[in-house]
Amino acid sequence: MNRQECYEHGMTVLEQVDGEAGQRIVNSLADISPELGHQVVAWAFGDMYARPELPPRDRQLVTLGVLTALGGCEIELEVHVNAALNVGLTPSEISEALLHSAVYCGMPRAINATLVAKKVFAERDLLPITNVG
Amino acid sequence: MNRQECYEHGMTVLEQVDGEAGQRIVNSLADISPELGHQVVAWAFGDMYARPELPPRDRQLVTLGVLTALGGCEIELEVHVNAALNVGLTPSEISEALLHSAVYCGMPRAINATLVAKKVFAERDLLPITNVG
Amino acid sequence: MNRQECYEHGMTVLEQVDGEAGQRIVNSLADISPELGHQVVAWAFGDMYARPELPPRDRQLVTLGVLTALGGCEIELEVHVNAALNVGLTPSEISEALLHSAVYCGMPRAINATLVAKKVFAERDLLPITNVG
Amino acid sequence: MNRQECYEHGMTVLEQVDGEAGQRIVNSLADISPELGHQVVAWAFGDMYARPELPPRDRQLVTLGVLTALGGCEIELEVHVNAALNVGLTPSEISEALLHSAVYCGMPRAINATLVAKKVFAERDLLPITNVG
Amino acid sequence: MNRQECYEHGMTVLEQVDGEAGQRIVNSLADISPELGHQVVAWAFGDMYARPELPPRDRQLVTLGVLTALGGCEIELEVHVNAALNVGLTPSEISEALLHSAVYCGMPRAINATLVAKKVFAERDLLPITNVG
Amino acid sequence: MNRQECYEHGMTVLEQVDGEAGQRIVNSLADISPELGHQVVAWAFGDMYARPELPPRDRQLVTLGVLTALGGCEIELEVHVNAALNVGLTPSEISEALLHSAVYCGMPRAINATLVAKKVFAERDLLPITNVG
Repeated sequence: MNRQECYEHGMTVLEQVDGEAGQRIVNSLADISPELGHQVVAWAFGDMYARPELPPRDRQLVTLGVLTALGGCEIELEVHVNAALNVGLTPSEISEALLHSAVYCGMPRAINATLVAKKVFAERDLLPITNVG
Repeated sequence: MNRQECYEHGMTVLEQVDGEAGQRIVNSLADISPELGHQVVAWAFGDMYARPELPPRDRQLVTLGVLTALGGCEIELEVHVNAALNVGLTPSEISEALLHSAVYCGMPRAINATLVAKKVFAERDLLPITNVG
Repeated sequence: MNRQECYEHGMTVLEQVDGEAGQRIVNSLADISPELGHQVVAWAFGDMYARPELPPRDRQLVTLGVLTALGGCEIELEVHVNAALNVGLTPSEISEALLHSAVYCGMPRAINATLVAKKVFAERDLLPITNVG
Repeated sequence: MNRQECYEHGMTVLEQVDGEAGQRIVNSLADISPELGHQVVAWAFGDMYARPELPPRDRQLVTLGVLTALGGCEIELEVHVNAALNVGLTPSEISEALLHSAVYCGMPRAINATLVAKKVFAERDLLPITNVG
Repeated sequence: MNRQECYEHGMTVLEQVDGEAGQRIVNSLADISPELGHQVVAWAFGDMYARPELPPRDRQLVTLGVLTALGGCEIELEVHVNAALNVGLTPSEISEALLHSAVYCGMPRAINATLVAKKVFAERDLLPITNVG
Repeated sequence: MNRQECYEHGMTVLEQVDGEAGQRIVNSLADISPELGHQVVAWAFGDMYARPELPPRDRQLVTLGVLTALGGCEIELEVHVNAALNVGLTPSEISEALLHSAVYCGMPRAINATLVAKKVFAERDLLPITNVG
């Protein structure tokens, strides 16, 4: 594949996983770092996400864990909570995954990520979640 | 204690330490992750804060250190600057604790935390602080 | 449940998930912070892991993501690569999950986590993995 | 040099490197932690930046790397993207440095830093950048 | 004070707080970055630790919180667990401070820090600690 | 370029920048995650490092900043201190870059990175460095 084909292949994957939210980030990079936008699409999605060794739902569980632990990634987490819903995780599973992360990265990171999920779920009319044990 | 009693015990501790600011975070979790709200109250406050091995003032010094170092925890830091005042740390001591943290986690994290403290101190009419050596 | 029953319930879950490797960490805490050992068992496993909202395999995917992103958690990652195998993730899926994390937390964290997995897989005679695309 | 002279020496360096943006941060600390403001000026700039062992342009490349990796330092990064321009890095070089950092700290941190650079470049009328390979 | 006097003043403070363990780190920097060694002594200890606004015991609580949260600072944490003992924190208080940090930065960071404390306490013949609630 | 050609192109760049130390990391991944090894070579070096928008010396300054700030990347930092020497940074400049990073990510991260540099410089017979101001 040439450079343009790599991009188009990646964009197909990105659209399936992230939908509109992912494209908005790529667009926001167009006038400041088009190469970063290209790498997000062609490399992260075309090369990495496209690999069959791990299904999309599993990839989002890993991604939610990484982004929650990193902190300060609210923009990206918003994209990936949307992505998680798109690839078949339920709101309750997403909420539980973020709760689970508290064991490993502490309450503040888990709370911050959960408030991002709340925003996304509200926009998609998915509240309330009832995960009380 | 049963689950409800654990929650009520934790809420008593949380109210003494964090006051209204802590309850606002727990409330914000109610429709997205009630279990996370429960764990913050019943485990973090009922189990951990309630232990007599370290007095509340000492716990807030550790907490300020952790939250400053983590970064990206402005919401939680706001709660805990309030908590620090509630349990007897003076504005000058809080400001100095954040200054001290700069040695270990660098100027940007210390500045960010200090600007959160500034917001809380302004709301509680505690400015200016004069800690020039 | 009383304190002792909480511990025993948690230990049952810990043994299923982490096996011997988890118990070694808890044991290593016995003479320095028995309460931390108790909380790992009774709270992290008894309260959090035991919840049915997310199956064990999914919890390990989130955990691998969090620990890889945090960095400096080689001891805990070793436990959880073992745990991941115990709850049904294949070596190839674990290796791919760590590869995937590179997109979000960079190559060094992914490499470090992968070298921990290599150690565990070697001990369990699971090498080589062949995940070339 | 006495304390006041250290401050004045540091302020001269700070003005050359950071310009107005750096002074705004120092000013914002005046009523909450004047000593932190003093240390930023007198120590960070007067003692560290002033050293001839590394030229200002090189220092900003290191600083961009550190701040991008830390995350959650948008305020400080804005100052240092301005500083980077002030000491001779071109917009294209800054954009490329942030792209490069993605290899080591992942896409989200690189995207966040790039969007801060976009804000600064827009204010200084330096968009669009064209770094497509 | 001139440069040499700043260093000597800082070294007096460092010796009181960190003892031998701190000096070993400074010595280890002598042939690779004498200026970093100088700044640790003259700035971190001479300028920051020496300030009367926060007593040494409080500074160590903040420091333990920061270093635990950062992770990967085992060498420095070892120095500061020693320092914490030197300035009057009891083994039980130190162990509890690290337990407390688990709420905010998660179990793995708290475990890692606690195992560093265990090493220091063993060297100073202070085990076992009994902090079970 | 096909997959194999991408790898060979990347390996040429990697050899120029990292030398033997980089290849050792790639080799260590061969039986656990050959795809991660491939991506380090083909993507990180073939795609990213090879871009002419930033010269190799500048890329290493950014990389040193990122790796120092991340912490827990001693293996990778060792490769990149070697790389920094290979692309023309002097020992004194590297030492100063790590000293500089202390302003932004604190003393412990700067000390840890400096001790890695000390190891590399010792192996290449480049000690002592004299950067006292």
